[in-house]
Amino acid sequence: LFSLMEEGTKKENKEMAETSADQESPAVRFGWDTSRWIEYVSAAKYKSIEEARVIYKEFLSVFPTAVKYWKMYIEQEIDAKHYEEVDALFKECLLKVPHVSLWQCYLNYCRITTKNRENGNKILEQSYEYAIENVKYDTNATPIWLDYIQFLQESPPSSNFEAQNARATKVRETFDKAVEIPLVNSSEIWERYMAWLDTLNRSYKTKVSEKRHPKQLQCRMIFLKRKSLEDNLPSIRLAVPPGEANADIERAAVKYWKKIIRFEKKPAQQVSALELRERVVHTYKQCLLSLLHFPEIWYDYAKYYADEGLPEEALNVYKQAVEYLPDSVLLHLSYADFLEQLNRPNEAEQVYKNLLEVKNETLVWIQYMFFEQRVFGVKKARKTFLQAHKQPTCTYHIYVASAMMEFYQNKDPELARKIFDRAFQQKFGKETEFIVHYLKFLWNMNEAQNTRVMFERVLSSIPPEKAKMIWNLYLEFEYECGDAKTVSQLEKRKADQFPDEDPNGILALVNRHRYQDLWPCNLATLDSFEYDEREKENEESQAKIQEELATKYPRPDFSNMVPYRDQMGVLTPNMLGPPVPNPSSTGEITIEANEADESYSNLPDPLIDFLARLPPSESHNGPAPDIEKLLQYVREANLPPLPDGAVALGKR
Amino acid sequence: LFSLMEEGTKKENKEMAETSADQESPAVRFGWDTSRWIEYVSAAKYKSIEEARVIYKEFLSVFPTAVKYWKMYIEQEIDAKHYEEVDALFKECLLKVPHVSLWQCYLNYCRITTKNRENGNKILEQSYEYAIENVKYDTNATPIWLDYIQFLQESPPSSNFEAQNARATKVRETFDKAVEIPLVNSSEIWERYMAWLDTLNRSYKTKVSEKRHPKQLQCRMIFLKRKSLEDNLPSIRLAVPPGEANADIERAAVKYWKKIIRFEKKPAQQVSALELRERVVHTYKQCLLSLLHFPEIWYDYAKYYADEGLPEEALNVYKQAVEYLPDSVLLHLSYADFLEQLNRPNEAEQVYKNLLEVKNETLVWIQYMFFEQRVFGVKKARKTFLQAHKQPTCTYHIYVASAMMEFYQNKDPELARKIFDRAFQQKFGKETEFIVHYLKFLWNMNEAQNTRVMFERVLSSIPPEKAKMIWNLYLEFEYECGDAKTVSQLEKRKADQFPDEDPNGILALVNRHRYQDLWPCNLATLDSFEYDEREKENEESQAKIQEELATKYPRPDFSNMVPYRDQMGVLTPNMLGPPVPNPSSTGEITIEANEADESYSNLPDPLIDFLARLPPSESHNGPAPDIEKLLQYVREANLPPLPDGAVALGKR
Repeated sequence: LFSLMEEGTKKENKEMAETSADQESPAVRFGWDTSRWIEYVSAAKYKSIEEARVIYKEFLSVFPTAVKYWKMYIEQEIDAKHYEEVDALFKECLLKVPHVSLWQCYLNYCRITTKNRENGNKILEQSYEYAIENVKYDTNATPIWLDYIQFLQESPPSSNFEAQNARATKVRETFDKAVEIPLVNSSEIWERYMAWLDTLNRSYKTKVSEKRHPKQLQCRMIFLKRKSLEDNLPSIRLAVPPGEANADIERAAVKYWKKIIRFEKKPAQQVSALELRERVVHTYKQCLLSLLHFPEIWYDYAKYYADEGLPEEALNVYKQAVEYLPDSVLLHLSYADFLEQLNRPNEAEQVYKNLLEVKNETLVWIQYMFFEQRVFGVKKARKTFLQAHKQPTCTYHIYVASAMMEFYQNKDPELARKIFDRAFQQKFGKETEFIVHYLKFLWNMNEAQNTRVMFERVLSSIPPEKAKMIWNLYLEFEYECGDAKTVSQLEKRKADQFPDEDPNGILALVNRHRYQDLWPCNLATLDSFEYDEREKENEESQAKIQEELATKYPRPDFSNMVPYRDQMGVLTPNMLGPPVPNPSSTGEITIEANEADESYSNLPDPLIDFLARLPPSESHNGPAPDIEKLLQYVREANLPPLPDGAVALGKR
Repeated sequence: LFSLMEEGTKKENKEMAETSADQESPAVRFGWDTSRWIEYVSAAKYKSIEEARVIYKEFLSVFPTAVKYWKMYIEQEIDAKHYEEVDALFKECLLKVPHVSLWQCYLNYCRITTKNRENGNKILEQSYEYAIENVKYDTNATPIWLDYIQFLQESPPSSNFEAQNARATKVRETFDKAVEIPLVNSSEIWERYMAWLDTLNRSYKTKVSEKRHPKQLQCRMIFLKRKSLEDNLPSIRLAVPPGEANADIERAAVKYWKKIIRFEKKPAQQVSALELRERVVHTYKQCLLSLLHFPEIWYDYAKYYADEGLPEEALNVYKQAVEYLPDSVLLHLSYADFLEQLNRPNEAEQVYKNLLEVKNETLVWIQYMFFEQRVFGVKKARKTFLQAHKQPTCTYHIYVASAMMEFYQNKDPELARKIFDRAFQQKFGKETEFIVHYLKFLWNMNEAQNTRVMFERVLSSIPPEKAKMIWNLYLEFEYECGDAKTVSQLEKRKADQFPDEDPNGILALVNRHRYQDLWPCNLATLDSFEYDEREKENEESQAKIQEELATKYPRPDFSNMVPYRDQMGVLTPNMLGPPVPNPSSTGEITIEANEADESYSNLPDPLIDFLARLPPSESHNGPAPDIEKLLQYVREANLPPLPDGAVALGKR
């Protein structure tokens, strides 16, 4: 549904930009809309090669692993006899996009270009060998094997007996190799092998058959097993980032590709370590043709090389990965980690710097700063912090990270305090999450009076609707560090601020006498505390709306990820167990009943929900509002913090 | 349903103890089963007064506010003419159980005993006055008012004119008073007043009527309003603790009694402060007749007196409260707090001591220790700790509380560390929750090496199935305080311990580069991390079962109350949002389908669930198990910690 909203705004943007649309690049216009891309690229074959070339290049820069369109492009160049371009294209794609059909295309091209050339056969043979070298472990390589063998059989190098004998040996060796690889339709290779041997020597054939046939059968079994996994792979026309395609398709693709990779890593045949690795690597490459944008695959691939003791190969994988995914924070950080591990700090630093150019984000700055601290020491890390905190996009986290680093790594609590204070004074004095970090830092420093002063400063400066978390934290603090007087005064002040919340103070009483998970009364008694009915209903309907939104727009369940601490004052009987569902009293909001629904059916759901909650316009008989001002007010509204603001009372 | 289970075991116990049942007291036999109690007490009236007396006393010691049975008891004594006992009983109940019907009973008794006595009328008049004094603001007191007035009218003190005049004045004043109190059926009083005035003086009647009638009407309105609240009160035959009666009934009773009390606190009439207070106090007393075991009412009642500036009265309320509820931790602690606030520490200490005799629980010791620290200083608090930690029932919390007190209140981190270490070495070295507190303390002390040593000690001593939380905490610690090497080594060690959890380490990678709520990749990418299918399904069905159980047996939602921190290694795509419900694949557990269900329909639900999950007995063809050994094994099984063990990574 979000995508619906986005589409809405996109459409709007599109309409607004209608006139300039033609100037915009297709990448901007199409985003990840594969249907529109395919429509666009499919038109190329009806255009002149010069026009087509532009289209293909645009398309392939977005979908660099789209085999089918590489082939279309190349074939169109071949048809136009632009062989120089063809050579360049093959050079660009053959190794990067390892797919049998591209190699077949290449071999066809070689057959054409070598036809009447001197040494043509020799060149063609080399081409075949090159192709075989690259796709020999591809289960779909059967046609290439067959063509190659046929070529070997049909074009004897000379009439020289020795050369003929050597050729025969080569044919046999090629057959021998091919029948011991799990290939589609490998029985055809086997039959050709046997037929060929028939023409040579019957008894030798029997010997070969006896020796090779069990292995050939084993290969067929292995192929069938792998095929049964491949059959579960959904067809993915174009590689798009996670979340851009159907979720079920993505999940199935990841699941079965990983199964295939695991399958290849534990071969049912005896193969040499080298062959095993070549097969596994080829499988990773095949997988990345469709899962190009999935960091896990790249990471797993690089890790495979690293685990095999081939760090240079692993680095190559990372290099490719960040070329394809220049804005993947995860892959860059992993790449940098690996370089750091290899004791190549300068290269690692460069990875951070490259990433920052694409993604100027707080997290990247934080990890960069930590890296500098680890590798080059505190001075450089501090410089990085000074650079980071000037970035307009930087959030409070950089201050917290820097302060905690000074505290835990450099054992300099005073500097940590200064960093917090600077952030509080200059930038984040009204940001609850930041303030909570600051307060907990002071609390841990065990200087009650300073902490108290800070609590007071905060409470006097932030708006009351944002202050509840602070009040609760303050109470927690006083329970632990204060005395009876400071506690009861604070309880009173809080009750004055939130008079409806706990009218007779019974919840405050419970909280005051609770210690961790020890409660001063049993559940039934907690449950017996009646509290304001109106507020309860309100809360319930709010919870329901939240729940609804949450199912519509999935987002991280922060309560599981970040520390979550009950906002103590809100301790209510509600929390004591999942409310018994009461379908008869679902509150007064019955969106379905709203008559306006139909006329708004084109609007995104959240807006419809919102409109359904507005009173009917007839009921308004005051002066007409100033729309401009209203919108300005909405834009500048101080919205309540998100639920993950509840970072509040946990650590980190 | 739990009660069903409990009943099951109770029944069993009962049968086992069948022979000795008669010796056991009814309190033991009946618990809070009001039906059995009523059956038991109802038999008393057919017994001799000596036998009945025992029954009534037993009953009333459990249900001291059961008006009906007080009356039954007293009437049976009156019938038997045991007037001394009757006097004693009235003395015992009239003020403690302020109910109109008991006063009516008392007045009837007075009428009998004064009948032919000298000065009988005088004594009866005093009795009436005593009764009126006590129930005058009870809305149900109408019959007593009417009786009293009739008595005044019918029994003139003498023929002396002045005395007759004075009596007339008294009748008028009584009428005047009665018609200005909201009473049931007050029109009858009004009519009698008017009728009486008719016999005296017409013009005076008009004057009175003009003056009093508006107020009388107002009283009727007020009565109707209060009655409309009272009509919502469920009928409660006997006062039982929260949770022992139907939850809806309890909730309604608390809700409407509190509404009635609020209603009385804001009178619609003009009344003196004194009268207002008397009315409110009477309402509290009425409420406690049925909500005797609800601490909130007692607390609210005491608080009312305290807020009225009557601390002695408030203390009296607390005294009564803890007499009725000698094991209410909440009320004792509140009582002690109030005494501390009044600067009466020795009495407060006595409250803690009394409570400890009934409830020797860790929380009480902790609060007692905190109290000693606040009021008498650190030495006495330490003595209390030394006393507390010897109690066999004491949990690790007392050590944590004491250590934190030494740290925050007495600024003695070394002593705090010693306390933790003592507890670790001598008692709680294998208790994860305790260990987490200890580790976080060391962490906060910012001595990385000591903390690390402790982590290693813990990991080498606790069983692996309990260690996950510790591993996660250790990782968190290394992210914050360690370097690249310590982090990667620890990640590796953890992965070796839990090989199925994050097979290729992608989740560890994400966690390593996450900072608080900043993530190194977007949600869709997190979602794309496939992980072991089997484990996922298992987890999902586990979650479903948990959810089911949770709705069946409400219990505190610990995740909201205590700090909760994701056990990092378990970071899974599942957590990233509420799973989209997929009703078609609800897993393989279909309890409904189990054929065994019907034959087990008498069993409690959890057992049926469990049985439904067992494979059919036919499928077992190994040797028959040794049942004794099996049961022993089950009893001694090391169950996984409860979810609230997740205290893990939050503070406090």
